[in-house]
Amino acid sequence: MNKNMLTGIQSTGIPHLGNILGVIIPSINIANNSKYSSYIFIADLHSLIEIKNLETIRYNTYQITAAWLAFGLNTEKSLLYRQSDVPEVTELAWYLNCFFPYQRLTLAHSFKKKMENNEKINVGVFSYPILMAADILLYNAEIIPVGKDQLQHVEIARYIANRFNKKIGKKIFVLPEAFLKKETMSIPGIDGKKMSKSKKNWIDIFSSDEILKKQIMSIHTDNKSLNEKKNPDKNYIMYLYKLLAPINRVEEMRKKYLKGGYGYLEAKIALYECIIKKFSFERKKFFSLIKKKYLLDRILDLGAKKAKNIAFKRLNNIRKILKFNPS
Amino acid sequence: MNKNMLTGIQSTGIPHLGNILGVIIPSINIANNSKYSSYIFIADLHSLIEIKNLETIRYNTYQITAAWLAFGLNTEKSLLYRQSDVPEVTELAWYLNCFFPYQRLTLAHSFKKKMENNEKINVGVFSYPILMAADILLYNAEIIPVGKDQLQHVEIARYIANRFNKKIGKKIFVLPEAFLKKETMSIPGIDGKKMSKSKKNWIDIFSSDEILKKQIMSIHTDNKSLNEKKNPDKNYIMYLYKLLAPINRVEEMRKKYLKGGYGYLEAKIALYECIIKKFSFERKKFFSLIKKKYLLDRILDLGAKKAKNIAFKRLNNIRKILKFNPS
Repeated sequence: MNKNMLTGIQSTGIPHLGNILGVIIPSINIANNSKYSSYIFIADLHSLIEIKNLETIRYNTYQITAAWLAFGLNTEKSLLYRQSDVPEVTELAWYLNCFFPYQRLTLAHSFKKKMENNEKINVGVFSYPILMAADILLYNAEIIPVGKDQLQHVEIARYIANRFNKKIGKKIFVLPEAFLKKETMSIPGIDGKKMSKSKKNWIDIFSSDEILKKQIMSIHTDNKSLNEKKNPDKNYIMYLYKLLAPINRVEEMRKKYLKGGYGYLEAKIALYECIIKKFSFERKKFFSLIKKKYLLDRILDLGAKKAKNIAFKRLNNIRKILKFNPS
Repeated sequence: MNKNMLTGIQSTGIPHLGNILGVIIPSINIANNSKYSSYIFIADLHSLIEIKNLETIRYNTYQITAAWLAFGLNTEKSLLYRQSDVPEVTELAWYLNCFFPYQRLTLAHSFKKKMENNEKINVGVFSYPILMAADILLYNAEIIPVGKDQLQHVEIARYIANRFNKKIGKKIFVLPEAFLKKETMSIPGIDGKKMSKSKKNWIDIFSSDEILKKQIMSIHTDNKSLNEKKNPDKNYIMYLYKLLAPINRVEEMRKKYLKGGYGYLEAKIALYECIIKKFSFERKKFFSLIKKKYLLDRILDLGAKKAKNIAFKRLNNIRKILKFNPS
C-alpha cells in the first residue's frame, strides 16, 4: 500500500528560494513517486493567526499554487488543496486538544520565543501545533517533509496520536515521521540567517529579473578586495551556488575563491545567471499560471473535493469511536 | 424580531437540583416565552475535556434531554441538540482563536484555579472558553442564562465579538449578554458550598425516593439539640426550603426554628416531602422518558438538523468575510 505524504505551506507570501529548495522540490520528488499518495495543502487557516489582510491571504494561495504547479507537481496524482476548503480539520483539532497536555504545548519553540520577546499573541499562535497535528492525523500521513524548525510539530502529532490510540485502545492514528532533507534543511538568506519571510532576507525567484538581481546583489559578504584570496566555506554566495550549480561549476568557483583575483560581484553575477538559467522554465510557467486564476481555482477545488471526501469518512470513523453520531 | 437565547449543559452527569433551579427552570421560562428563539445544547464536545469514558458522555446526553423535557421544554419551539451534532462550531472556534489574546485567556477562572492547584490539564481545558464563545456567536445569541461562575465566559464572547467586528469593520456578531437569575444563582449543596458534580454535594431529584432521602438527610447542620432555638438564616435546609416551598410554609418553618423544639430531622423530612411533591410530575415523566432512547434520539436529531442548517448558513457568511470559499 502507498504511504501518505503530507506537507503544508503557510499562505503568508510567495514561496522564496528557501521554500523551493527546502520544501517544494523535495516534496514534489516524493509526490510524483508512485510509492506515495500525497497531500499538499495551503495553510490558510493557519495564516489567519498572523495576517488580518484577508485579500492578501487569498492572493497568496494563488501564488503558492502557481509555484507548486510550475515546479511540476502532478495534481492528477497528488492532492493540492486549500486548508480552509476542508474545515473538518478544525473538528479533529478540538478532539486532539483534549488529548494533549497544556504544559507541554507551552514548550513549543515558536510560542516560547514569542512569549520571551513579550509579543502580543493570540490564542491561535498557541494552538497552532494542534491544528497542524490535525492536518497530519486527519489523512493518516506517515511522511512529513519538514524543515528543522518544524520537527517539533511532527513530534507533537506523534505524541497525540500515540496518546489517543492508547486511551481508546485501538490504533486509530498511524504515527507520522518527519522527513528531513539534510543539505537543504536550512537555506541561508541574503544575510546568512535562515531564509524566511519574517526576516525579509529572501531571494524570490518569481520576481522580475531586475528585483531578483537586486536581491542577489544584496547578499552579505566580508570586505575582502578583488585581489584577495577568499574562503569558499564561509561565504553565503558560495553556499547558495553549491545548492544550485552543477558540481564542476561549483569546483571552478571554489578555485577562483582560493586563488584570489575573483570578486564577490562576479560571484554574485554567476549566481544570478545560474538561477535565471536553472529556473527559466519554472519562472515562465509561474508568470503564465498566475494570470489564470480560474485554472488555479479549478485545480484547488478538485483537490479540496477529494481531500474533503477522505476527511469526511475518516472523521466519521473517529466520531464513532468517540460515541458521537455520524455527521 | 425574536431575541436568541442560548444555554448549554455539560454532559458530565444527570442534572441535579442546582442545575434545575439555576439553569433548567429559568431557561425554560425564557424558551417557552414567545419573544425568544432558544438554543439549548448538550455540551458533549466540552465534556471530552474531562471524561474519557465515552459511553458515559453518551448516556448523560440522554439523561439531560429527559430532564429538560420533563421540565416542560417545548421542542417544537426551541432547539434542543447535542453540540457534537453541529461540529461546525469547532470551525468558528478556530477563527475566534485568532482574535483573542493568549494572555487574556490564561486569566479564565477555571483554568487559573486548576493551574494554581497544579492539576494536569489538557489543551481543551484552556481553549474551552473559546469553544463556548463559538457556541454563542454561531447563533447570534443575545441572552445567555448563566450561573455566576460562567459570567466570565459571556464576557469573553463579548470581547471576541467586539474585536472581530472592529477588525472586519462590519457588525458580524451581536454582543451577547449574560442573564443572571439572582436568587438561584448559587444553590447550596448538602455541605453549603455551591452544588456541583465535582464536589459530589448534590441533591439528585431524578434518583430513587430512597437515595433522594439519604441525600437530604446528609445536609450539614450545626449541633443544636431538638429543644434549642435555631437560626433560620444560617441553615442550608432552610435555604433550600425557601427556594422550593410556598411562602406560608417557609414562614411556618422559620417560626419553628426561632421558637425551638423543632429538630433538623423534622426540617429535613419537610424538605424531602416538599421536593417529592413539587417534582412528582417531572420525576414520573423523567423515569418514563429515560427508557425511550429512540424518542430522545429523534428529538435531539431534529434539533441538530435545525441548528446545523442555521450554523451552515452563518458560517458561510463568515467564510465569505474571511475570503474563504463557501463550504
